[in-house]
Amino acid sequence: MTDFRTWMTAIQGRTESALDRLLPSAATAPVHLHEAMRYATLGGGKRIRPLLCHAAGQLFAANTDRLDIAACAVELIHVYSLVHDDLPCMDDDDLRRGKPTCHVEYGEATALLAGDALQSLAFQLLAEQGGDTSMMAMLAQAAGSRGMAGGQAIDLAAVGKNLAVEELEFMHIHKTGALIRAAVLLGAQMGNADSGAQKQLGRFASRVGLLFQVVDDILDAEASTATLGKTAGKDAAQNKPTYVSLLGSARARELAGQLAAEAQAALTAFNAGGERLAELTDFILDRTF
Amino acid sequence: MTDFRTWMTAIQGRTESALDRLLPSAATAPVHLHEAMRYATLGGGKRIRPLLCHAAGQLFAANTDRLDIAACAVELIHVYSLVHDDLPCMDDDDLRRGKPTCHVEYGEATALLAGDALQSLAFQLLAEQGGDTSMMAMLAQAAGSRGMAGGQAIDLAAVGKNLAVEELEFMHIHKTGALIRAAVLLGAQMGNADSGAQKQLGRFASRVGLLFQVVDDILDAEASTATLGKTAGKDAAQNKPTYVSLLGSARARELAGQLAAEAQAALTAFNAGGERLAELTDFILDRTF
Repeated sequence: MTDFRTWMTAIQGRTESALDRLLPSAATAPVHLHEAMRYATLGGGKRIRPLLCHAAGQLFAANTDRLDIAACAVELIHVYSLVHDDLPCMDDDDLRRGKPTCHVEYGEATALLAGDALQSLAFQLLAEQGGDTSMMAMLAQAAGSRGMAGGQAIDLAAVGKNLAVEELEFMHIHKTGALIRAAVLLGAQMGNADSGAQKQLGRFASRVGLLFQVVDDILDAEASTATLGKTAGKDAAQNKPTYVSLLGSARARELAGQLAAEAQAALTAFNAGGERLAELTDFILDRTF
Repeated sequence: MTDFRTWMTAIQGRTESALDRLLPSAATAPVHLHEAMRYATLGGGKRIRPLLCHAAGQLFAANTDRLDIAACAVELIHVYSLVHDDLPCMDDDDLRRGKPTCHVEYGEATALLAGDALQSLAFQLLAEQGGDTSMMAMLAQAAGSRGMAGGQAIDLAAVGKNLAVEELEFMHIHKTGALIRAAVLLGAQMGNADSGAQKQLGRFASRVGLLFQVVDDILDAEASTATLGKTAGKDAAQNKPTYVSLLGSARARELAGQLAAEAQAALTAFNAGGERLAELTDFILDRTF
């Protein structure tokens, strides 16, 4: 098996190429909108969801070109959510992936429409290039009011409130977890994984989704804006409840370690096949940006 | 055949019931978001797109329950676009369908998320309840950057400019036309219309889409806010090019009549079967709100 860093760089590279190819060109009318969509999507991001999608698909020997489609569909949903989340009426942020946010660069109205059109494009891709209706239903559910968008609504309502850890977990299961779960399961479905395997992967994904968020909270509290490529310290500044604000740094780190261990335990059913997902879990646990 | 008004009222009623049933209940968490989605969608609107979808589907004896799904998916995309279009960074409007707009009632952030989630729900419905990938591809294309969202971007760029009638037409073919065409063709596809019939209906839909917009421009210039249930005179106030500003009222009315005649000419291939669509064309031509 290729070593993890080489594999990761390869998947990130092919995801970037696929997104570049699948997005309308900047020469296609309306030019300003397509430029904004490309600006928000290309040239940045860790591509965690595409990595999870590919790693899960490889477990079932899924075709790599088909995995690109699933990975890009999920990533487009993720990018649209970032563009909307950064708008002044939401988090009002001006830095993302080390660049000015989409609305800073293209104006609020265009950023709003770019996010809208990125969501449409995600479904168009899956519909036109080898997805089926069950995959589309899963992605739509993960994106919608009982998934990611719902999680953001809960997040809005939580500002300035004291949440219990269980309430924080409920928020993140929706806000981040639903789409991460979709990335893993769409990868598996592209390889025709049976329902037992999907159930097992769903357990893995739910732990990895929370792990991702706990680490995100720790980084927001402890890393610098330069390292993150987005504004650091935002959660505290906006008085948002986080794992760090609720548990403190030390216990948040402990929780991250525990979630990573649980995620990896869910992979033992796949024997050696789960190794890539296990490496990815370690990467998510140890990431510094 | 039932008379037109009776038919129209029946379709509007079943569309309202279907939307009510298909939207998450207001008791489902996150409550505030689901209330906003329901507020924006229910209890108003002419339901022109559902009417077109049902009328086109009836031509091919499509199952009425399946037509409800297609009609609601298109209407949800339409409603999401209204919610986002009314936001302060877009048209900044406070009245829609006779009520305060969604962001006035629920706040900007929630309105943004409600629009986002309504788009996801449209695709979820089609995916879960009898749509196929070709229908989903068509709806996604119609909604996206080379359809409705693209048309809104062109609209933004046109404010304060002198457009040629051809440029105005190009804008509306995207902004309004694409989704109206999707409504007609999804209805036909639910009845397994063959490709020749779909092509013919596509011609009809392109004329009706423009007709709808020309009449919209006339009403914006001439009707009252109370009659329209949305702010009248908005185009002139925002210095937007319209058919009335470019052609004057009299020639805009003439154009509307001509588009209606062309739409109806495209229906002759269907003989008596096209009668409902012809009546609907007359209704769109003669509407006063």
